[in-house]
Amino acid sequence: MTYGSPDRQDGTLTQGGYSDSIVVSEHFVLQMPDGIDLASAAPILCAGITTYSPLKHHGVGKGHKVGIIGMGGLGHMGVKLAKALGAEVTVFTRSEAKVEEAKRNGADHVVVSSDQAQMDAVAETFDFMLDTVPVQHDLNPYLATLRYDGTHILVGLMDPIEPAVEGFNLIFKRRVLAGSLIGGIPETQELLKLCAEQNITCDVEMIDIQEINTAFERMEKGDVRYRFVIDMQSLKR
Amino acid sequence: MTYGSPDRQDGTLTQGGYSDSIVVSEHFVLQMPDGIDLASAAPILCAGITTYSPLKHHGVGKGHKVGIIGMGGLGHMGVKLAKALGAEVTVFTRSEAKVEEAKRNGADHVVVSSDQAQMDAVAETFDFMLDTVPVQHDLNPYLATLRYDGTHILVGLMDPIEPAVEGFNLIFKRRVLAGSLIGGIPETQELLKLCAEQNITCDVEMIDIQEINTAFERMEKGDVRYRFVIDMQSLKR
Repeated sequence: MTYGSPDRQDGTLTQGGYSDSIVVSEHFVLQMPDGIDLASAAPILCAGITTYSPLKHHGVGKGHKVGIIGMGGLGHMGVKLAKALGAEVTVFTRSEAKVEEAKRNGADHVVVSSDQAQMDAVAETFDFMLDTVPVQHDLNPYLATLRYDGTHILVGLMDPIEPAVEGFNLIFKRRVLAGSLIGGIPETQELLKLCAEQNITCDVEMIDIQEINTAFERMEKGDVRYRFVIDMQSLKR
Repeated sequence: MTYGSPDRQDGTLTQGGYSDSIVVSEHFVLQMPDGIDLASAAPILCAGITTYSPLKHHGVGKGHKVGIIGMGGLGHMGVKLAKALGAEVTVFTRSEAKVEEAKRNGADHVVVSSDQAQMDAVAETFDFMLDTVPVQHDLNPYLATLRYDGTHILVGLMDPIEPAVEGFNLIFKRRVLAGSLIGGIPETQELLKLCAEQNITCDVEMIDIQEINTAFERMEKGDVRYRFVIDMQSLKR
């Protein structure tokens, strides 16, 4: 693996992006478009492509209503990218506090998922739901917001998916529950181009490597909007 | 509803197909093709269309490997219809006793799902899995038999889907879990035409209405291949 695994050549631990230099097959190299801010673009290679790939694969575009579940690192990119693809975007969040934040990121609407009346009001209205929440949560209330033939896409890992999905939520409306993991190199290059053209970046906070422990503690508390990016120049200090 | 519900006009109980005559909108009438055996064709309108509709919807055809889970009323039609669409068909059954029966119905291969070695041998090989089992069962071993982008189609109702699905089984291979419920009238007419052309029928046992209680007991024991059909002429005796 890229990080913390035995190197194939000399058996030392791999350092991935923390290396001063790295030898890699050209098939795995991406070109950063001119004019893109490197720090803001860095998470496009993970949070960006993880949300873009399934939206593209499932054909999300103009005329579609898309729900984004969770307003974090993946969620805020999901909003921007679903908008860039032409969809009408609704953020689902448990927290009233994130309503303004979702709108600032471009969401057309926000549903507070803990408010049953708000959930009932959007029953059977969505074409796609992009679920970025990486902890166990009940999918059934979200499945109920999908129209006939709607698709719920999981990009956050849940093992197992509990509470269990009710079969009727899939069968009666021919709905689909789909998974997706990151994306390939050509698709990532396509995304970088799109982001450069439409001026789409991740919201990041740049830190020096010396601040990594504080940043880790803040991340655990959810105190980051939305990704820390390490300035590797600081490694030499 | 068609059966056992208050009639919209006079409030009496609806009798559905047990009526001597029935008044129905022409939009809900199907034409039985010439030469088709009515008794053998009857379950096409339920077991047949329930398996055909998702196979068609998901684009099953030549070059696809399709697994059929369960060798009952739906399963035996699933085998015949997936074969008619050009797929290579494997039946998954828990019971060695059904191996010959599956082959007689046209299955190219049979996997005894309780035999781990047989399951391991087909890991990541299927494009589609049509799951006709209407009682709770673990989907995870079947998901593991799907290739990248493979689709597991549920037509048997499980509420809830337990044991729970493992998220990684969907996410890491971009697999899909889909539901489907019966099918529409134009699709059913298309299926009747296909069945007449290719001489596809359900395996049925015709009974008189007077035998209904015995037939019900036998059905509960699984002692029917694969559907009882009532000869409505017997109602007049």
